[in-house]
Amino acid sequence: MFEQRLAALRRSLAQSNLDALLVTYLPHVRYLTGFSGSNGHCFVGKRTEYLLTDNRYRDQVKEEVHGIRVVITKKSLSEAAAGLPVFSGSMRLGIESQYLSVAGLATLKKRLHRVTFVKTQSLVERVAAIKDKSEIDSIRRAVDISERVFRRIVEFVRPGMTELDVAAEIGYLHRKLGAEADAFEPIVASGRRGALPHARASSKKIRSGELVTLDFGCRVKGYNSDLTRTVAVGRPLARARKIYQVVQDAQRIAIEAARSGMAAKALDGVARSYIRKKGFGRYFSHSLGHGLGLQVHEAPRISSLSKDVLLDGNVVTIEPGIYIPEFGGIRIEDDIVVRNTHPEVLSRSPRELLIL
Amino acid sequence: MFEQRLAALRRSLAQSNLDALLVTYLPHVRYLTGFSGSNGHCFVGKRTEYLLTDNRYRDQVKEEVHGIRVVITKKSLSEAAAGLPVFSGSMRLGIESQYLSVAGLATLKKRLHRVTFVKTQSLVERVAAIKDKSEIDSIRRAVDISERVFRRIVEFVRPGMTELDVAAEIGYLHRKLGAEADAFEPIVASGRRGALPHARASSKKIRSGELVTLDFGCRVKGYNSDLTRTVAVGRPLARARKIYQVVQDAQRIAIEAARSGMAAKALDGVARSYIRKKGFGRYFSHSLGHGLGLQVHEAPRISSLSKDVLLDGNVVTIEPGIYIPEFGGIRIEDDIVVRNTHPEVLSRSPRELLIL
Repeated sequence: MFEQRLAALRRSLAQSNLDALLVTYLPHVRYLTGFSGSNGHCFVGKRTEYLLTDNRYRDQVKEEVHGIRVVITKKSLSEAAAGLPVFSGSMRLGIESQYLSVAGLATLKKRLHRVTFVKTQSLVERVAAIKDKSEIDSIRRAVDISERVFRRIVEFVRPGMTELDVAAEIGYLHRKLGAEADAFEPIVASGRRGALPHARASSKKIRSGELVTLDFGCRVKGYNSDLTRTVAVGRPLARARKIYQVVQDAQRIAIEAARSGMAAKALDGVARSYIRKKGFGRYFSHSLGHGLGLQVHEAPRISSLSKDVLLDGNVVTIEPGIYIPEFGGIRIEDDIVVRNTHPEVLSRSPRELLIL
Repeated sequence: MFEQRLAALRRSLAQSNLDALLVTYLPHVRYLTGFSGSNGHCFVGKRTEYLLTDNRYRDQVKEEVHGIRVVITKKSLSEAAAGLPVFSGSMRLGIESQYLSVAGLATLKKRLHRVTFVKTQSLVERVAAIKDKSEIDSIRRAVDISERVFRRIVEFVRPGMTELDVAAEIGYLHRKLGAEADAFEPIVASGRRGALPHARASSKKIRSGELVTLDFGCRVKGYNSDLTRTVAVGRPLARARKIYQVVQDAQRIAIEAARSGMAAKALDGVARSYIRKKGFGRYFSHSLGHGLGLQVHEAPRISSLSKDVLLDGNVVTIEPGIYIPEFGGIRIEDDIVVRNTHPEVLSRSPRELLIL
């Protein structure tokens, strides 16, 4: 599993004419080595790789990391990396410039005079965007837990509860059903607050007649789920039903259209142009979706500006939404695996408007 | 409140002969401006300051940020920062080199030819280490919630439950009692697993006769609590009682010794030398404590290597522990405010060994 990931990364390094890469971003360190601690760097050379961490993780490394040399250090990880025995002679070392700090690079440069530092972008992220079977299985398990939580939550929600009450219940059920943690703080946005796509749960009470957007996910073996349903508490307005139908239809045609080889921005356009045609274009204020894995947001990005191309094995969210100030918002989000043919939809919760 | 923080930072900039500072680390951006979103930079000049963020946070900024100019941008924040109208002429701009990425600095340098970039370290962190009254009040509220959770948890824990069951209950109660979130994933480590200071909760069942270490905290207005108690489920071994007493005494004398003006490493030494004298020196494998605020771990660091000096208004944890492989571990952690006289102890849960 890790051998294949390292081999894919090495192909990518060779294409960029690099001898090695220093990986400092923790989700990528975990992806390449299995190490899940809070302090780690990873060096990937043509034939060797090293994981660097500190003494707190001595036991954890033994459980998690196999077939990779481990360096336990008391120094900063940049200092320890500069001391690796791999830097004999001149070489081209890639550094992921979005993640390595200015101080970290200064430490490396001070010690490694014969190394040429080459700024790279998204090398590991592009490899990690194509999921293997074990990764998809973990995401599937996380999706399954979140869907069981959703079934219980729709029984639980009652007018008079606060959004925070519902968020607390979601987090509790995630853990009780076997997740490691919430993937992110659950979003529970009711009534007018639904018009804020990134609203967290608040102490606002849920009232009868309101729409409630529930956006939540959990983590299994480090892999995340990310689902959204908007439900009605009591009888919704006709306007809400109409907008809901637009979002539901936009999501369905986007899921049906997703294929490997397609430009991500073209897929965003499928949902966006449908919503625009229905007259709500200016109210769909975010991108259609994003890759999902060890990070809740990762490559590929499915937006109108994205330069990514969808590939077989990408796991992505499809989450159109319409947000009308002073009225509220509706979003529906599912997780799919991109394939050469019809995508595999990991989430199976009903997409029709549920009236509680 | 923010005016005072900005004024303190400006004094620090003047001492370093800097005209301005670009702040890219989110907890520091929040500290200086109040903005709690997930994408923000802050520029602090001699007379002006700017907050930069993106369109998702347009409404949130209006609620959270007052008296500071706001720039909403579609560009990367480094690009947008380079476009601020403050960079006319030559100037010395501080950048926090531990946090600014190599890519971010490259973007700034490409646009700002007349600016001299000066790498700084911990400028904001040192200012933020001295808490004002409103910050201490938020931490006190977070501590209060966590202590109420602890009182309920000791009624809840029963042999046969898993560690994850207990962690789920902690997270649930935090939110139900009004916290925004857990400060970190609760640590529940029972029996031999207690010997791993950083063990998270697992699916291991808690058995009668075991010690259980509970390390948890919550967040109120962005500020964190961080508490640990080790309890016995059923009758503990005499050896466990003896070690518990050593940890409890070490913690008490360290709390009593804490004073502003004291070297943090001297305070670490107070607990460490006591534990060493009792014969457990090699089993106290981490530092005595750390600053606590918008981050769970921040300045000052209370370790044997720390160069920090304790100052009036620091909020720190005092958390000695003894970890014996194959046997288990004991840790007791409280949160205190450092003063010129006796410290103010924010947490009041009993420190005696509780037998459930």
